[in-house]
Amino acid sequence: MKPIVSIIMGSTSDLPVMEKAAKLLDEMQVPFEMNALSAHRTPAEVEAFAKSAADRGLKVIIAAAGMAAALPGVIAANTTLPVIGVPVKGSVLDGVDALYSIIQMPLGIPVATVAINGAMNAAILAVQMLALSDKELAQKFADYKEGLKNKIVKANQDLKEVKYAYKTN
Amino acid sequence: MKPIVSIIMGSTSDLPVMEKAAKLLDEMQVPFEMNALSAHRTPAEVEAFAKSAADRGLKVIIAAAGMAAALPGVIAANTTLPVIGVPVKGSVLDGVDALYSIIQMPLGIPVATVAINGAMNAAILAVQMLALSDKELAQKFADYKEGLKNKIVKANQDLKEVKYAYKTN
Amino acid sequence: MKPIVSIIMGSTSDLPVMEKAAKLLDEMQVPFEMNALSAHRTPAEVEAFAKSAADRGLKVIIAAAGMAAALPGVIAANTTLPVIGVPVKGSVLDGVDALYSIIQMPLGIPVATVAINGAMNAAILAVQMLALSDKELAQKFADYKEGLKNKIVKANQDLKEVKYAYKTN
Amino acid sequence: MKPIVSIIMGSTSDLPVMEKAAKLLDEMQVPFEMNALSAHRTPAEVEAFAKSAADRGLKVIIAAAGMAAALPGVIAANTTLPVIGVPVKGSVLDGVDALYSIIQMPLGIPVATVAINGAMNAAILAVQMLALSDKELAQKFADYKEGLKNKIVKANQDLKEVKYAYKTN
Amino acid sequence: MKPIVSIIMGSTSDLPVMEKAAKLLDEMQVPFEMNALSAHRTPAEVEAFAKSAADRGLKVIIAAAGMAAALPGVIAANTTLPVIGVPVKGSVLDGVDALYSIIQMPLGIPVATVAINGAMNAAILAVQMLALSDKELAQKFADYKEGLKNKIVKANQDLKEVKYAYKTN
Amino acid sequence: MKPIVSIIMGSTSDLPVMEKAAKLLDEMQVPFEMNALSAHRTPAEVEAFAKSAADRGLKVIIAAAGMAAALPGVIAANTTLPVIGVPVKGSVLDGVDALYSIIQMPLGIPVATVAINGAMNAAILAVQMLALSDKELAQKFADYKEGLKNKIVKANQDLKEVKYAYKTN
Amino acid sequence: MKPIVSIIMGSTSDLPVMEKAAKLLDEMQVPFEMNALSAHRTPAEVEAFAKSAADRGLKVIIAAAGMAAALPGVIAANTTLPVIGVPVKGSVLDGVDALYSIIQMPLGIPVATVAINGAMNAAILAVQMLALSDKELAQKFADYKEGLKNKIVKANQDLKEVKYAYKTN
Amino acid sequence: MKPIVSIIMGSTSDLPVMEKAAKLLDEMQVPFEMNALSAHRTPAEVEAFAKSAADRGLKVIIAAAGMAAALPGVIAANTTLPVIGVPVKGSVLDGVDALYSIIQMPLGIPVATVAINGAMNAAILAVQMLALSDKELAQKFADYKEGLKNKIVKANQDLKEVKYAYKTN
Repeated sequence: MKPIVSIIMGSTSDLPVMEKAAKLLDEMQVPFEMNALSAHRTPAEVEAFAKSAADRGLKVIIAAAGMAAALPGVIAANTTLPVIGVPVKGSVLDGVDALYSIIQMPLGIPVATVAINGAMNAAILAVQMLALSDKELAQKFADYKEGLKNKIVKANQDLKEVKYAYKTN
Repeated sequence: MKPIVSIIMGSTSDLPVMEKAAKLLDEMQVPFEMNALSAHRTPAEVEAFAKSAADRGLKVIIAAAGMAAALPGVIAANTTLPVIGVPVKGSVLDGVDALYSIIQMPLGIPVATVAINGAMNAAILAVQMLALSDKELAQKFADYKEGLKNKIVKANQDLKEVKYAYKTN
Repeated sequence: MKPIVSIIMGSTSDLPVMEKAAKLLDEMQVPFEMNALSAHRTPAEVEAFAKSAADRGLKVIIAAAGMAAALPGVIAANTTLPVIGVPVKGSVLDGVDALYSIIQMPLGIPVATVAINGAMNAAILAVQMLALSDKELAQKFADYKEGLKNKIVKANQDLKEVKYAYKTN
Repeated sequence: MKPIVSIIMGSTSDLPVMEKAAKLLDEMQVPFEMNALSAHRTPAEVEAFAKSAADRGLKVIIAAAGMAAALPGVIAANTTLPVIGVPVKGSVLDGVDALYSIIQMPLGIPVATVAINGAMNAAILAVQMLALSDKELAQKFADYKEGLKNKIVKANQDLKEVKYAYKTN
Repeated sequence: MKPIVSIIMGSTSDLPVMEKAAKLLDEMQVPFEMNALSAHRTPAEVEAFAKSAADRGLKVIIAAAGMAAALPGVIAANTTLPVIGVPVKGSVLDGVDALYSIIQMPLGIPVATVAINGAMNAAILAVQMLALSDKELAQKFADYKEGLKNKIVKANQDLKEVKYAYKTN
Repeated sequence: MKPIVSIIMGSTSDLPVMEKAAKLLDEMQVPFEMNALSAHRTPAEVEAFAKSAADRGLKVIIAAAGMAAALPGVIAANTTLPVIGVPVKGSVLDGVDALYSIIQMPLGIPVATVAINGAMNAAILAVQMLALSDKELAQKFADYKEGLKNKIVKANQDLKEVKYAYKTN
Repeated sequence: MKPIVSIIMGSTSDLPVMEKAAKLLDEMQVPFEMNALSAHRTPAEVEAFAKSAADRGLKVIIAAAGMAAALPGVIAANTTLPVIGVPVKGSVLDGVDALYSIIQMPLGIPVATVAINGAMNAAILAVQMLALSDKELAQKFADYKEGLKNKIVKANQDLKEVKYAYKTN
Repeated sequence: MKPIVSIIMGSTSDLPVMEKAAKLLDEMQVPFEMNALSAHRTPAEVEAFAKSAADRGLKVIIAAAGMAAALPGVIAANTTLPVIGVPVKGSVLDGVDALYSIIQMPLGIPVATVAINGAMNAAILAVQMLALSDKELAQKFADYKEGLKNKIVKANQDLKEVKYAYKTN
């Protein structure tokens, strides 16, 4: 199936973070592709990617980068599709450099930014956007969200048992 | 026309910031509504708002708040619609408190966060999401983006004239 | 015995931090309960919890959360009981995201915030609040505080012995 | 009437911030006193104040300070009463110095910290603590909280009218 | 004369900051040009500018931008010429967003970053680079630096006179 | 009288901040001198100043600087006298740049750093150092400290009167 | 010999950091004592310590603390002796909390602050203060400083040899 | 061959970071030297180094330092050659102290700063400066940059294969 979401990251070193986005999309059966392209090292490829994205049938782009994370913004500059940005924690700073580089976009060119290393939430956000015109996906996402709730309710029950182990009054 | 975007802010003091979002949606002829509801002062109203949002025909929610900005996340918790968060600069800190409170969402409940005080970009992001299934709006947005480019190209020409005023070699 | 303090955390992953609060309350023989509920994943449960808290006989609520830590504020929004907030250090930032999300509450809805990961102090603060109308507990707490002092006085004596090991002039 | 809350600030320059706490306590008819004492300039007075606080009939202490804001912690060290800390924004930094100086207390000596310049919330927190054993005050506070909600609901209605002024589609 | 330095800024609102760079180059008789181009709004123009820079005879590029300041890095990605970056203080944050967005470049694509709003120093750095192969310019710069020193020596003498106005022992 | 304290600042623009140090020394009748010298613009003068300081009879050096505030550290590198550093708030950042540049000295070369813009405290610290071997000065300083205490005790009394203006219960 | 320097730390957990100060003083043959006292847990002992310090013959106090590091300031409040503050890195934040709590002292009560964990430099600063009236110690310190220089000159020579291992052009 | 680039670091502990600069220069066949000199411990050597740099035939200086990183600025103060600064992450803070100490230079004395620990980029920047008057080196650098691009294109292809391992729809 032709991908409708594209996961793009500034470096293959971002893969351990971004795998979670891929898995979530897989789970939701949203066809996607995944690429490593750098706004600074392969600018022509990034531009070509962004300019052709809509024509290739893509609907949403998830772009992840660390440090001076220009990738999401540069893609947003070259497409009218919504771009979701994932700031990746680098080796020195705590990801605040990437966060600022991605979120502080000028008027006219937003990037929908999620938490530092928030790959899975980026995928969910893509699903939410797609679900606006895909009822089946909307249902799948509603089920997924219900599942999250049940998980924590279950965890809470486990917690109570743990608690009694050391609580005796 | 029934609104498909809802702009919601934590306090009416956020209105000077959020007006820009309203104006942009107006300009793009996207029907919208605007409300002030507080996650901390009117939690029941926020919950009712969020839970009924999809059924009322809303597609995208733009939520703005300052300080311990819980509003966008609490709305996201109670709807499956995509929620766009606008951190608002408060009177003491530079808006970093609101930024962290909005963007650092847990797994499963993303908020698509834009720049501090980035109301206009929040509206554009809403337009981009809606344009995924609305070709007319997609075209309007493409025109708008082209217009932005032309503005800066024009500004650049003005700049050249300014420059020659003090550059003589 | 019916609990009068409720420890609530946003995720069971906060348990290693929050156990210290439970132990202190146990030591002070203050009946308590402990739950994991998420403002973002189980908002209805959080609301139900907060709204029924006073009626169930609870006096003080200790709420811990990391990242965009909305839990303490959302509980405070739905109860008139005092809420003590514990910012929990997450995996990426140093807990400053949780600190800002908890402490920067709007006018009218305070959260009594303690240090990042300061679970034990949250329990002590709960004890101090309860001791305002419980003389026996007030005495227990005074004894506890005296004990802390004696510990550091003892440590100081040990330190002097250590010192002489390498100080010879 | 004998005061049961004491508002203490590190410098009279903190008065414009702390007046809001006084007004709220007045409104709630909680007898209080207000003093300026400095942990660094009048340490003996601070110690005497803190040590005699419980015996003088005080129940809760609200302590405000800026910069290296030692006052709340030093008071907490010398009393078993709950101490609420208000970090005050200074002339150079944004109040983060005071926030860290107040909230990062060691094990055993908590300070219930509120937002930077959050004087009114400190007073509310004091009211919440006192209301644990004062049903009349508890009712007053519940009414006050309801009032806050009504104010924002009213503001929202005003907002709707403002909106229609510039929204015409 | 054909420009050998190009001053490029992300927005004409950066002009008040960047004028100082222009004036310094003028003073040093280094032929330059000045443009406003945005990495996010006019990406094609930025790419065309950067790719043709060396062929047009440019030697050094000074790029200034605020917020998610991608401009210097994107230019560096598309040229082999040295790029000097000037982080510009925006309306909300203190320029730290721009600083991180410019300086934290990935391996292979450096941007020579100067202080926040440090336009004049960017121009001096350009002069220093050019002076490596232009002895006349090297001499001019050495004279300029000597002049700076004399200015502060003179200021120091003035200071001594000021001092005696209020110092009498 | 030959100066025994030298106040040195990186730029005459620091004078409004540093005047307070001069006034305090005057008040304490400590002979001093005041100079503007820049570690970056007049390095030879700074070195000459620092190397000759002890021989000229100076006992303590107060060095103030903003931004990349190298002055205090460079002076400390060239003298064995104690150096007190005053970080000065610049035009862009809140003085944290100067604070880090002054305080984070390597092993072996300390700078005794005071608060951002803390000129008066730098002078007091110099007085404290000198008073170690000057009993008369020690007494003057003890009196000065007593005076500070009295001022705040007086302010507290004024505060009580202010309070009653709006407190009526 | 009677101690003239007192090293005091807020907790014995600061000992691994503060040992370096003790070793340096030993090496310089400056008689010292070392204690753990907490401004928050043993306030009376801290006050007694500070008030008697001058009378016991102490000349300089080195006070180290982490988190809401009130110890150095509280000691400075209770003595006229110079107090050197060492911010200690805690378990959660990077020591910036302690840095702000120690350095941002109000007018009149300075603490001579050194780098985070900068125990050795605190000891050197104490030596510099004492050396103002102790020529023998002044000479020892001058020799020590010369030794530091020689160490790095030696390291530089080693570096050159390392370099040639992989540099062959 | 006589070195034209000098790598200088504040401490030999910076060597693991700075080796990458040396390797890159080696690879580009740019003759260089490497030294450890400290602005604070060996100020005379630093001054002598900087003042003689141009006469010894050096063209560009790369200076790395951590903490209160005065080295790059002090060298820039004593030479007219361009100085590239590398902030080195220290043991306590994340390198932000060094970044501010290096980049926030006063008017007239710029340091071309690169990313925290960005040694390799410092070397590339030196190459770019030298390549302005060395066509052979310019070509080598263009080839190097092309190589970087190819590496990431290759990585992208590998990524695609990885992806298919877990993506099956």
